[in-house]
Amino acid sequence: MITFYSDTHRLHHGSELKDGVLMPCFEMPSRADTVLNRVLQQQLGEVLPPQQFGVEHYAGAHSLRYLSFLQNAWEEWRASGRDHDALPLVWPVRDLRSDLEPEFIDGKLGFYAMDAGVAITAGTWQAVKTSADLALSGMEAIQRGGQHAAFALCRPPGHHAAHEYMGGYCYLNNAAIAAQYARSHGAKRVAVLDVDYHHGNGTQSIFYQRDDVLFLSLHGDPKNSYPYFSGHRDELGAGDGFGYNLNLPLPHGTDWQGYCAALQTACQHIAGYAPDVLVVSLGVDTFKDDPISSFLLENDDYLRIGQMLARLGLPVLFVLEGGYMVDDIGVNAVNVLQGFEGA
Amino acid sequence: MITFYSDTHRLHHGSELKDGVLMPCFEMPSRADTVLNRVLQQQLGEVLPPQQFGVEHYAGAHSLRYLSFLQNAWEEWRASGRDHDALPLVWPVRDLRSDLEPEFIDGKLGFYAMDAGVAITAGTWQAVKTSADLALSGMEAIQRGGQHAAFALCRPPGHHAAHEYMGGYCYLNNAAIAAQYARSHGAKRVAVLDVDYHHGNGTQSIFYQRDDVLFLSLHGDPKNSYPYFSGHRDELGAGDGFGYNLNLPLPHGTDWQGYCAALQTACQHIAGYAPDVLVVSLGVDTFKDDPISSFLLENDDYLRIGQMLARLGLPVLFVLEGGYMVDDIGVNAVNVLQGFEGA
Repeated sequence: MITFYSDTHRLHHGSELKDGVLMPCFEMPSRADTVLNRVLQQQLGEVLPPQQFGVEHYAGAHSLRYLSFLQNAWEEWRASGRDHDALPLVWPVRDLRSDLEPEFIDGKLGFYAMDAGVAITAGTWQAVKTSADLALSGMEAIQRGGQHAAFALCRPPGHHAAHEYMGGYCYLNNAAIAAQYARSHGAKRVAVLDVDYHHGNGTQSIFYQRDDVLFLSLHGDPKNSYPYFSGHRDELGAGDGFGYNLNLPLPHGTDWQGYCAALQTACQHIAGYAPDVLVVSLGVDTFKDDPISSFLLENDDYLRIGQMLARLGLPVLFVLEGGYMVDDIGVNAVNVLQGFEGA
Repeated sequence: MITFYSDTHRLHHGSELKDGVLMPCFEMPSRADTVLNRVLQQQLGEVLPPQQFGVEHYAGAHSLRYLSFLQNAWEEWRASGRDHDALPLVWPVRDLRSDLEPEFIDGKLGFYAMDAGVAITAGTWQAVKTSADLALSGMEAIQRGGQHAAFALCRPPGHHAAHEYMGGYCYLNNAAIAAQYARSHGAKRVAVLDVDYHHGNGTQSIFYQRDDVLFLSLHGDPKNSYPYFSGHRDELGAGDGFGYNLNLPLPHGTDWQGYCAALQTACQHIAGYAPDVLVVSLGVDTFKDDPISSFLLENDDYLRIGQMLARLGLPVLFVLEGGYMVDDIGVNAVNVLQGFEGA
């Protein structure tokens, strides 16, 4: 399987507010190194740099003013006299207004965010742009290059980022951008399957009213897992999109038995939908030793996930999302890919 | 003028996320000390402890589940193994769900918050409850005790706290709780005038659909001032409350000339409404040297504010809100009260 990767991700490593203290994000550069090393060690296939895409390719998933904010935020923050990472301090919840963009950067940061885990640093835009370009390059390789599958080794991840807000270490929604690219280049129907431990609220939100992109997610129940405010079973889509959103929240302590049954359900839905291409938001924080999650999957279970996905017989773009147990995320992510390839 | 005060506020001093770093809140215990010292030094009048009120007296302004959250949050946070201040990490913005309360404390913290400046510490509930009781005691002294005016030396402040969320150093909305108490004890109409530098989004939100409580606020324009997502001119109230909400946002650098004109407008509206009692949310962060605001009022201007309010001829409960230039907040707050008393 072909892998798309770039070193540019190193330009971004932020801080997050967690457990009441500010600390370096669990989402760190060594994550990508670990996965890349495993790709090379296992000789998964060619590793290629991304093509460059223009911001217009991100606009199917994000608003232009949000993209403009992401490009300019660091300079505005610096111009206002701060040199720490830029973090929001207040958010437009409930009846607070989400219609008027504030003029001052502190207001903009909260306006375009859902949490305090999305620091903007000097290199953030370049890193997130390149991450999105990896996903686009992967989809392009499938659609025009005739590859059956590709792996976008994205960092930062993307599935929490919605039309107009960043969150959960995510800025541009790489999977959604790739799915939209597929739609714009010949695919009639696209399915996005999110197997990250955390609900892919951003991807759900972007396609919630559409029937041309089916979204499915297996994740920790939001009653007690991040992102808390999204990912319940009764979120079924709206308008034209009603019936094209499937959430399968699972309890703490879910092991392969429970996970496998839910994945089977998701695969049946995908088969029924008969998409032209499948995007897999590949988080491996479902692993038993992940430091911020609570499922109990073992290394070999990731091979089985890949094998089940292969049986769908679809072209698949794998997009890296979360996974924070640095030593094992390489093994687990590549196990999915090797399972898919028939290992 | 009678003052209500309690030392209990000392039990609360949290941290906040500001300028991208976590620091002790600008809203600190010495603020109340400074104001109390000035009250005593100027011999403003008797200083009394609060009466104790039950949580049912806060329920006119806040939901029962929010009150229950505030009471239990610290214990739940401790039980989950953390001993730092409890701070939220993710918020239900835009299409994220505000209808289902998460079960885990990390989710609850964001569910009931608008920002990262509302730490919950071991003593927070006792401090905020006592602060609300100070405002209730002041209103009770006016309504049953025959006082023409009273000063509730509240800390923590309250005006950013809404029906179901805390924010901006505020947990219980002391002014709104006192206004509702007045309505429940004979007042037909109540006006709340907020002169804090920051828009009183919580008070506005609580009474937005009601015509029995008029809300007026003079504040820094939310385009470039906290809370950013509330406080624009076009927020006029809704339903029965349409026309009973008046925002007067003012630009950076507003001095007495601009401020006085806006205050005159507010006073005319109050006079036209003819309330039975007036609650003044008394923030003095409009001072020229305030560290987190941008107006240019001088010490003597606060005497003039008090004089203008006195001309309304209404019973007035003054409730302390913000003001962070510790050396001067005592002088400025008490200047308003002394101006009101005819100094």
